[in-house]
Amino acid sequence: MATTTSELITKAKAARAATRDLRNLSTDKKNAALEAIAVALETQQTAILEANALDMEAGASAGLTDALLDRLMLNEDRLNGMASDVRTIVRLPDPIGETFDGRTLDNGLRVERRRVPLGVIGTIYESRPNVTVDIAALCLKSGNAVVLRGGKEAVHSNNALAALLRSALTQAGINPEIVQQIVDTDRAVVEQMIKANDYIDLIIPRGGAGLVNYVAKEATVPAITGGIGVVHTFADATADVENAVDIVFNSKVQRPTVCNALDTLLVHAAVAPKLLPLVAAKLSAAGVELRCDQRALSLIGPVYGDSVKAATAEDFGQEFLALVLSVRVVDSLDEALEHIEEHGSGHTETILTQDYTSTNRFLDEVDAAMVMVNASTRFNDGAQLGLGAEVAISTNKLHARGPMGLRELTSYKWVARGDGQVRR
Amino acid sequence: MATTTSELITKAKAARAATRDLRNLSTDKKNAALEAIAVALETQQTAILEANALDMEAGASAGLTDALLDRLMLNEDRLNGMASDVRTIVRLPDPIGETFDGRTLDNGLRVERRRVPLGVIGTIYESRPNVTVDIAALCLKSGNAVVLRGGKEAVHSNNALAALLRSALTQAGINPEIVQQIVDTDRAVVEQMIKANDYIDLIIPRGGAGLVNYVAKEATVPAITGGIGVVHTFADATADVENAVDIVFNSKVQRPTVCNALDTLLVHAAVAPKLLPLVAAKLSAAGVELRCDQRALSLIGPVYGDSVKAATAEDFGQEFLALVLSVRVVDSLDEALEHIEEHGSGHTETILTQDYTSTNRFLDEVDAAMVMVNASTRFNDGAQLGLGAEVAISTNKLHARGPMGLRELTSYKWVARGDGQVRR
Repeated sequence: MATTTSELITKAKAARAATRDLRNLSTDKKNAALEAIAVALETQQTAILEANALDMEAGASAGLTDALLDRLMLNEDRLNGMASDVRTIVRLPDPIGETFDGRTLDNGLRVERRRVPLGVIGTIYESRPNVTVDIAALCLKSGNAVVLRGGKEAVHSNNALAALLRSALTQAGINPEIVQQIVDTDRAVVEQMIKANDYIDLIIPRGGAGLVNYVAKEATVPAITGGIGVVHTFADATADVENAVDIVFNSKVQRPTVCNALDTLLVHAAVAPKLLPLVAAKLSAAGVELRCDQRALSLIGPVYGDSVKAATAEDFGQEFLALVLSVRVVDSLDEALEHIEEHGSGHTETILTQDYTSTNRFLDEVDAAMVMVNASTRFNDGAQLGLGAEVAISTNKLHARGPMGLRELTSYKWVARGDGQVRR
Repeated sequence: MATTTSELITKAKAARAATRDLRNLSTDKKNAALEAIAVALETQQTAILEANALDMEAGASAGLTDALLDRLMLNEDRLNGMASDVRTIVRLPDPIGETFDGRTLDNGLRVERRRVPLGVIGTIYESRPNVTVDIAALCLKSGNAVVLRGGKEAVHSNNALAALLRSALTQAGINPEIVQQIVDTDRAVVEQMIKANDYIDLIIPRGGAGLVNYVAKEATVPAITGGIGVVHTFADATADVENAVDIVFNSKVQRPTVCNALDTLLVHAAVAPKLLPLVAAKLSAAGVELRCDQRALSLIGPVYGDSVKAATAEDFGQEFLALVLSVRVVDSLDEALEHIEEHGSGHTETILTQDYTSTNRFLDEVDAAMVMVNASTRFNDGAQLGLGAEVAISTNKLHARGPMGLRELTSYKWVARGDGQVRR
């Protein structure tokens, strides 16, 4: 425990101290450092791949699943892909120094707000080593120091990547202490990190629901909660049936393992007899399992064999992250709103409708990071919405909600320029 | 303990449930309710004053200081003043429903962000009963439910005011459950409140440094930390001496008991011989005690007798909240920046200068909620900066920094309107 404390606190302190060097770096200098990182990822692959081989070996003997081993694995292509992602961040506008709400008060005092870095970001993540580079690059561009705490399985890869990052920073003339990698893989480090209020300004957990919920419940450092999406689409009585089938299909099938994929389809009874058989045909052909309430079941029937089942209570309010969709028939918009209020996670909620009043009521009354009409839930995504890179999709209401880009990694300060103003 | 838990959780749950009724209330309806509250404060004073008399009696027997008793005391004038403050909130623009960042994506999807309430605000405060009405009115206008936990000394007054608020809401046709007053004065309630993540979205502590620091350290509900200002003004070598004397005087004397009042004056050695004697003359005449480092002391000397003393180390980095000012002579801007970095609380920092480069360096390099040039520190204030009412002055970097108005009590949601868009 003593060593644990001292590694985290020592490194978090070093990150905090380094923020002064980072606050006012020019965009050119930050971009040059990012380019140096990209070049290093392309030209210094041997050390990284050797370290990754150690993780892969340890993972295989520890019996990690193929899916987990695949997340852990690095190769030439993946390192080149990481370099290319860093260059994407080079091209994004620098949020630091942006000013807004500028005006001159009656007394002549000129006031504005100016974007500044948050300070030190702490990230806790799981097996993918690319997160190490991704988050460090986003933090550098937004002027933040970072304390990285990756998963135990990826510790050799992460150490090698952190060494690469720090050496590229040094080479670019930037204090390497702005990137800190925690080597200790003890779980206790996470607990210390989320309570290190004196040194860390924001915690971003990137991982499964277990990690995210743990951080949300225990952290005294402000934390972004996100990535858990129990996502609904409600096909209203007036939904355009052809559009609805396409949107539901895209929302469920295009990438089922992510947080903005559809989990539950609610269908108005007036459109269900027409819509549900078409949805069932298209989705079951794509390998989606439909878990239906009694009314939906009676409309779809046994035509699709094993891919249509009776839903249990647990199938509503669940994030599947897989080719599974729960389906319920409702009698009204109110019943749909009630269902979403009870079962939603405040992530992404969509109505399919041609009705003006239903649209307004849905957009007004549903409390979620993103509410949509007649479009795929998969658009709740930073890149799709034009933010460039995405740090997380927040379901917090404080600070930032929905997709978070570079700007959401900033704070602001008030700046006032006077010529002798005093208060009367 | 069992009863304690159940009062807080029961009421916080009721507040959470009531947020649905509050999310989409029209501005007219919220303003009508605020007007009903103002009228009630003017016309139903007997019950409040009787309750307040009980608190005053109990306070006197408990040996509260005169200053504390004065904070606790209500009379006809103060109730009318509270009504007038509520009407000020009526006149402020409603932040809810405001949309921003609207645009149309390449695929035709129309996207915008829309301001929505945070949900449930929890406030923990000390002896002033006017906070009960003030915070409830700000929350109502911004569409938030509120859980109020006032000080033990004011419990009778607060209960009477909460009853008045809830009855005025009912009369205005609004669910009174949006205002919840915690009757239990046990300290354990505060601990439960700051960990009630399921029911409370934001904690605002209003009180002394002890309360604020406790909440910052222990809360797992997001909390605003503010109100602690260790405020510096640095008179650079090129400071306009006449302006400097006026600004330092105003910053220290105009209202010494508040967080944006000046605590420490740093003076460049080049201007100190001219500036310090003038500052000392004007401030000591107003009853300010100057606690000076050796160099400042040698320049001011024993002319002002008891009002000029040698500073101890503790006089730097301290918030005085009184007519006391610490003074130090420095040799450079860098030394001043170093002092502020070490001793500041990130609240309000000012430079007095006529130099272009010093101005830029100070505004860029000082990390505080407000950085200023050539103006009184007392302008770091919501009303002065045009925000209307002020909830707090945040020294957090997350969510809101500096003065927080109604807009800073909101979140936003993303709204997207499509006509069949799916992701490719």
